[in-house]
Amino acid sequence: MTRMRLDLFDASRNLDRGRPAWFEAAWYLVKIVFFLSAMPWPSSVKCKLLRAFGAKIGSRVVIKPRVNVHFPWRFEVGDHSWIGEEVFILNFEPVQIGSHACVSQRAFLCTGNHDFRDEHFSFRSAPIRIRDGAWVGGAVFVGPGVEIGDETVVTAGSVVLKSLPAGMVCGGNPALPHSPRWRDSK
Amino acid sequence: MTRMRLDLFDASRNLDRGRPAWFEAAWYLVKIVFFLSAMPWPSSVKCKLLRAFGAKIGSRVVIKPRVNVHFPWRFEVGDHSWIGEEVFILNFEPVQIGSHACVSQRAFLCTGNHDFRDEHFSFRSAPIRIRDGAWVGGAVFVGPGVEIGDETVVTAGSVVLKSLPAGMVCGGNPALPHSPRWRDSK
Amino acid sequence: MTRMRLDLFDASRNLDRGRPAWFEAAWYLVKIVFFLSAMPWPSSVKCKLLRAFGAKIGSRVVIKPRVNVHFPWRFEVGDHSWIGEEVFILNFEPVQIGSHACVSQRAFLCTGNHDFRDEHFSFRSAPIRIRDGAWVGGAVFVGPGVEIGDETVVTAGSVVLKSLPAGMVCGGNPALPHSPRWRDSK
Repeated sequence: MTRMRLDLFDASRNLDRGRPAWFEAAWYLVKIVFFLSAMPWPSSVKCKLLRAFGAKIGSRVVIKPRVNVHFPWRFEVGDHSWIGEEVFILNFEPVQIGSHACVSQRAFLCTGNHDFRDEHFSFRSAPIRIRDGAWVGGAVFVGPGVEIGDETVVTAGSVVLKSLPAGMVCGGNPALPHSPRWRDSK
Repeated sequence: MTRMRLDLFDASRNLDRGRPAWFEAAWYLVKIVFFLSAMPWPSSVKCKLLRAFGAKIGSRVVIKPRVNVHFPWRFEVGDHSWIGEEVFILNFEPVQIGSHACVSQRAFLCTGNHDFRDEHFSFRSAPIRIRDGAWVGGAVFVGPGVEIGDETVVTAGSVVLKSLPAGMVCGGNPALPHSPRWRDSK
Repeated sequence: MTRMRLDLFDASRNLDRGRPAWFEAAWYLVKIVFFLSAMPWPSSVKCKLLRAFGAKIGSRVVIKPRVNVHFPWRFEVGDHSWIGEEVFILNFEPVQIGSHACVSQRAFLCTGNHDFRDEHFSFRSAPIRIRDGAWVGGAVFVGPGVEIGDETVVTAGSVVLKSLPAGMVCGGNPALPHSPRWRDSK
């Protein structure tokens, strides 16, 4: 017998889903039709739907097709930000994306986590914050508890397991800061 | 002219598909409706369907939406295991997942391979085994022939090209063991 | 206020979409039905559709389901090449795939890029060329401006940010050449 015992996992421990089941089910249906689908619904429609389900979405946010948002009531985006095709926002815990930020195609913002040294594998999810002016490149994985600093660039294909400071160009698996983004100090 | 000659590839060499074409086509249709779709069909229904097509699935297995299983007749899962959203199980060769194991969102278990030093690119696929109590993190790639040992954790975004021993926390590209999972020897 | 100003982004600067909006919309509908869908339309049908929208596609090209091609009018494939399930070809700029080449499941060929040192984040996309006989493995990311040399193999899960020479086996994040593909000099 293993020590890991998923039969004893308690789905409610360390996870308050935040909304009643009927509300979550309603969101899921809306998500299938307007978000997971490849149909090019206007971003304005999608932003309104997200707000109706509790998200705080600023003005002129662009949301491409096939974007998966788990809990809109834990989702916040500033103004003029972009979310690319096939982005997966698994936000058991809050995901905040600032203004003028870009999350590119196939990026995966994953707040979900488990305490793997607990035999019952209890939730240990944590928020993600993408600050103003940051760019999360294509196919980047961002893990739970990560903050990506203001105007920081994460190059495509990187795996971000720890927070990254502001104003840097970062990359790799695991992602590390490599050089400043802006070459002057204007 | 290149030495690589895909026109001379023999799709039947080193690959026995294991079932007649009509059976595979029937599975494909079931897969589109019940597995690739975002519709939240109950896991119990999906487990029954997998079993009807030849899989060995234990009790209380959780299968989230948008999971792609190539050949159910080469798929085996123990009890109380979880398979997350968008997991891709490309099992030309058998994939065995133990009990109390977790394969997280967007992981890709890829048994498919080719002998790239053969000019006809012949199949060189190999089974994958995820042992009891193991956790394959989100967006992890697991390659052909890999065995992930009992209770081993592979951190998100890793690329597993070689087998990993039991009881370790592993990660990176390529994934290597970093530290023991359990901190005592209970 | 950040220096990054997505409100001042000019979508037409450094990007000529190459076709009128109605043409692009028609392609998008065809793409939803025949390409993004899991329906196993024959490759021959898909090749004809791609050609009808401006692609140059050779003979006996195999295109699996759920392949996303952004602009067929900037897409060129030689003879006897294969494109696997869930491959994403984001070709704002031309993508050329040679003959006898294989692009495996979940690979992402991304020509899209932005000048992140420009405050208006202007486009800086660049073509991708996969030469004859090359193999781009599963879940590989290929970035803008990359050329993958003749018969070069990129192992699964790699991130290719710079061009790779001909005849090599390459891998990692970032991908680097490791050894020659062919062991003789026939």
